Amino acid sequence: MPTDTTPTDAEAACFEAGIKFGSLYHQFAGTPVSPDSAASLEAAIEESIENQPHCAAVTVDVLVDELEAELADATADYTELTGRFLEVEIVVDYEGCEVVTRMEMEDGYPLMRLESVRDERST
Amino acid sequence: MPTDTTPTDAEAACFEAGIKFGSLYHQFAGTPVSPDSAASLEAAIEESIENQPHCAAVTVDVLVDELEAELADATADYTELTGRFLEVEIVVDYEGCEVVTRMEMEDGYPLMRLESVRDERST
Amino acid sequence: MPTDTTPTDAEAACFEAGIKFGSLYHQFAGTPVSPDSAASLEAAIEESIENQPHCAAVTVDVLVDELEAELADATADYTELTGRFLEVEIVVDYEGCEVVTRMEMEDGYPLMRLESVRDERST
Amino acid sequence: MPTDTTPTDAEAACFEAGIKFGSLYHQFAGTPVSPDSAASLEAAIEESIENQPHCAAVTVDVLVDELEAELADATADYTELTGRFLEVEIVVDYEGCEVVTRMEMEDGYPLMRLESVRDERST
Repeated sequence: MPTDTTPTDAEAACFEAGIKFGSLYHQFAGTPVSPDSAASLEAAIEESIENQPHCAAVTVDVLVDELEAELADATADYTELTGRFLEVEIVVDYEGCEVVTRMEMEDGYPLMRLESVRDERST
Repeated sequence: MPTDTTPTDAEAACFEAGIKFGSLYHQFAGTPVSPDSAASLEAAIEESIENQPHCAAVTVDVLVDELEAELADATADYTELTGRFLEVEIVVDYEGCEVVTRMEMEDGYPLMRLESVRDERST
Repeated sequence: MPTDTTPTDAEAACFEAGIKFGSLYHQFAGTPVSPDSAASLEAAIEESIENQPHCAAVTVDVLVDELEAELADATADYTELTGRFLEVEIVVDYEGCEVVTRMEMEDGYPLMRLESVRDERST
Repeated sequence: MPTDTTPTDAEAACFEAGIKFGSLYHQFAGTPVSPDSAASLEAAIEESIENQPHCAAVTVDVLVDELEAELADATADYTELTGRFLEVEIVVDYEGCEVVTRMEMEDGYPLMRLESVRDERST
């Protein structure tokens, strides 16, 4: 007997959350960034990704301390945005399912992970 | 009584699939492309995204007919890669859950959607 | 007799100006943008590219009227940043040579062009 | 007396060469890459940038030895494309002026520089 493989709303919500994370990272990785320009980049990333469907909230921290540490030994006064200068939280709301996701460094890689999946209709 | 909001493996698999789609689109949208360079771009997109964790297969079609139609009226012989020149299928395998996702145009937008979610351990 | 092919400072200044334009366009093309998020994106583009060496000033206008016209007939309330929603001026100063460059639409393409090259040491 | 600030053809050629370099770097930086996918990425970068106006030739080396060294100590088997894994040469031909440009690492930064500017009409 075939198993039903139709996605649930919660699974679709998780898919949407993943799209936002992949979009955010690959749109903005490589952007020239310095401690002085970190705040405007944070705001632009948040507002641009919040345009995407079902995206309830995006919070971006460009880690100025990490930027300053990187630049202390450098000949330049800016670098390229990459995962180790970023902390991100994205909340997606899809058909009443709320998904919270977060990106942080783990073992030197920017790890994107699902924090929670809540079906608000059942609570 | 609090509801358990811990993601299931199937939900995590859908999140992973979304990451791949968002990554693919925002990494490569904007790439200069022509009918002659479509094939090498297809191969590079497939192989680069297949590097990502849990990514079982990526199939990319750059729609040469659509490119040719766009360029027939243009003064240039190339354009920028965007959703209406792309069809993509991505298969993710995460902890025994297989997720199939597809991008195609709908109402003029590149719609990314979940096709199926199959828990191979239960079939 | 071999011709000297060593670049002049003015030529190097023009090369630097081109780098800024190509960087700006291909870093930010594809970013989700709406009339409401246009201002934060303008600020982030300006400040990020001004980080690059020899970049004296970047002025970005995201054309909100053009965005609104595009979205009037659309089912979505955002679109992707591309050349027809952008006007950009970049001023580069390299070893005393000031180069002014501008991007505007021409025949449906975002045309980047050199406005002026001024060797300030000789004026 | 005002100085003439109209760009020469050689200056315009250098501007065009800079555009190609900035485009190449900011379009493809961040792409997931491994030793196995390096060759397809090289081909796609070359062919896509060669689409741009006045671009005579693009030669891209993704430095597989550098990738392997980076990945030897890593938990992942891919990384993100960035300047230290790239060597690029771009030749632009604009109105009879040939400009040769190259990118290589210097002091830990991907330095893009003009190699030569040759006005073929005068030789």
